[in-house]
Amino acid sequence: MKCLAFILLLVLTVPVSAQKVPGISGGRVVDLTYAFDASTVYWPTAEGFKLETDFEGVTDKGYFYSAYRYSAAEHGGTHLDSPVHFAKGKHTVDEIPLDQLIGPAVVVDVTKQCENNPDYQVSITDLQSWEKTNGKIATGTIVLLRTGFGKFYPDRKKYLGTDERGADAVPKLHFPGLDPEAARWLTENRSIKAIGLDTASIDRGQSTLFESHRILFDKNIPAFENVANLDQLPAKGFSVIALPMKIKGGSGGPLRIVAILNR
Amino acid sequence: MKCLAFILLLVLTVPVSAQKVPGISGGRVVDLTYAFDASTVYWPTAEGFKLETDFEGVTDKGYFYSAYRYSAAEHGGTHLDSPVHFAKGKHTVDEIPLDQLIGPAVVVDVTKQCENNPDYQVSITDLQSWEKTNGKIATGTIVLLRTGFGKFYPDRKKYLGTDERGADAVPKLHFPGLDPEAARWLTENRSIKAIGLDTASIDRGQSTLFESHRILFDKNIPAFENVANLDQLPAKGFSVIALPMKIKGGSGGPLRIVAILNR
Repeated sequence: MKCLAFILLLVLTVPVSAQKVPGISGGRVVDLTYAFDASTVYWPTAEGFKLETDFEGVTDKGYFYSAYRYSAAEHGGTHLDSPVHFAKGKHTVDEIPLDQLIGPAVVVDVTKQCENNPDYQVSITDLQSWEKTNGKIATGTIVLLRTGFGKFYPDRKKYLGTDERGADAVPKLHFPGLDPEAARWLTENRSIKAIGLDTASIDRGQSTLFESHRILFDKNIPAFENVANLDQLPAKGFSVIALPMKIKGGSGGPLRIVAILNR
Repeated sequence: MKCLAFILLLVLTVPVSAQKVPGISGGRVVDLTYAFDASTVYWPTAEGFKLETDFEGVTDKGYFYSAYRYSAAEHGGTHLDSPVHFAKGKHTVDEIPLDQLIGPAVVVDVTKQCENNPDYQVSITDLQSWEKTNGKIATGTIVLLRTGFGKFYPDRKKYLGTDERGADAVPKLHFPGLDPEAARWLTENRSIKAIGLDTASIDRGQSTLFESHRILFDKNIPAFENVANLDQLPAKGFSVIALPMKIKGGSGGPLRIVAILNR
């Protein structure tokens, strides 16, 4: 019955806009993606995003033309971590079934817990507490964790804990993530499609062994990182469409992720 | 009534899979995207896609890790042309409203017309003939042109007309596109969200002035190029979700485009 209710909500929301289709009142699409530019947040050791100009201006034939080249590390800005990023033989970014990237989604809000603790790890208790209010996390759900750190983006010092670069900066990273025990609880007790959050990594900044990555990715559950605008989403009752750049053999890549809200 | 019927079809298709949600029979998601790799088709003058390894193997901490860097010109593979690519001051790729990238779609099949004519231009007559069978192209439609050239991808010689590179190869390009007169007819008589096709450019290979680009882009109508798997779509009754990489100020970029079919 819950599934049916969700579907019926979608009738009024996807993919029709109120403006364009007379007589149908549509839902709002929320972009959960940061734009890629020189300020895009990358890991301290990674190469940032670059856009170089091939041409920009009026051609000798008299018309305007602009074209650029882009380059970056896979894991920066709003991006997807493929299971193969930390789990040998698991899905590369082009191999993730589209069905895992489109589906009903929920937001687990741990803003308060993170407010004075940039090293906070989202716990089993946080997930269970969400379920007490909102019902069990259904099979096929996309889980989004809202730590509140999105409000700092792209201020690296506040968002990452350090604005330094290079290997020496890595121990200075402080931002919340998912507790490996909670990652294990999700893989063993729930059947989610994917997980995402509003920090730079599904493991907290102080992680050294990236256990949550490894636990989730071993089960082919991808992660969305540096997800934007989670403060614009309700706890449940909306859907997520998360389409990564289809890089053959990629361990991840730029992600365009949107939510379709109930009106 | 047609809108309502379309919405009702979607009830059964978006975004729920038959497998994952018991009791609900869902629609099929079709990936209309080619993967990016060394064989990805680019314009003869453009730099191709490169994936470089940052790390791949077992770290000194004992777990597997892989990460890469990517680089390419914006306009290759399955990608989006932003209006600013040919129209000064019009939308950059990050500025295109999401509503224009999600919506009901149609396929205009001109496979037969292109079979023995790689210089074919999709005409007003082709569009009107589609409408005679299927009804008027509704406001807010995403129009996909199927020339049949998708079957040649990524064989550059067959797909582009030449596998040579550099400026001297450009006059040797032979593949179908949209007649500028048909582009004008669409902008003046219909109100479409976006247009796409299964060749490398919305103007045919033999175009020198790129009029269809300029006519469409001047009206802020983006184009999807090198779209895959159009042979798997019906003439109408499905939706398209086309999410480009959000490059700040980009004249285009990698596009992940999918169709949601009626079951």
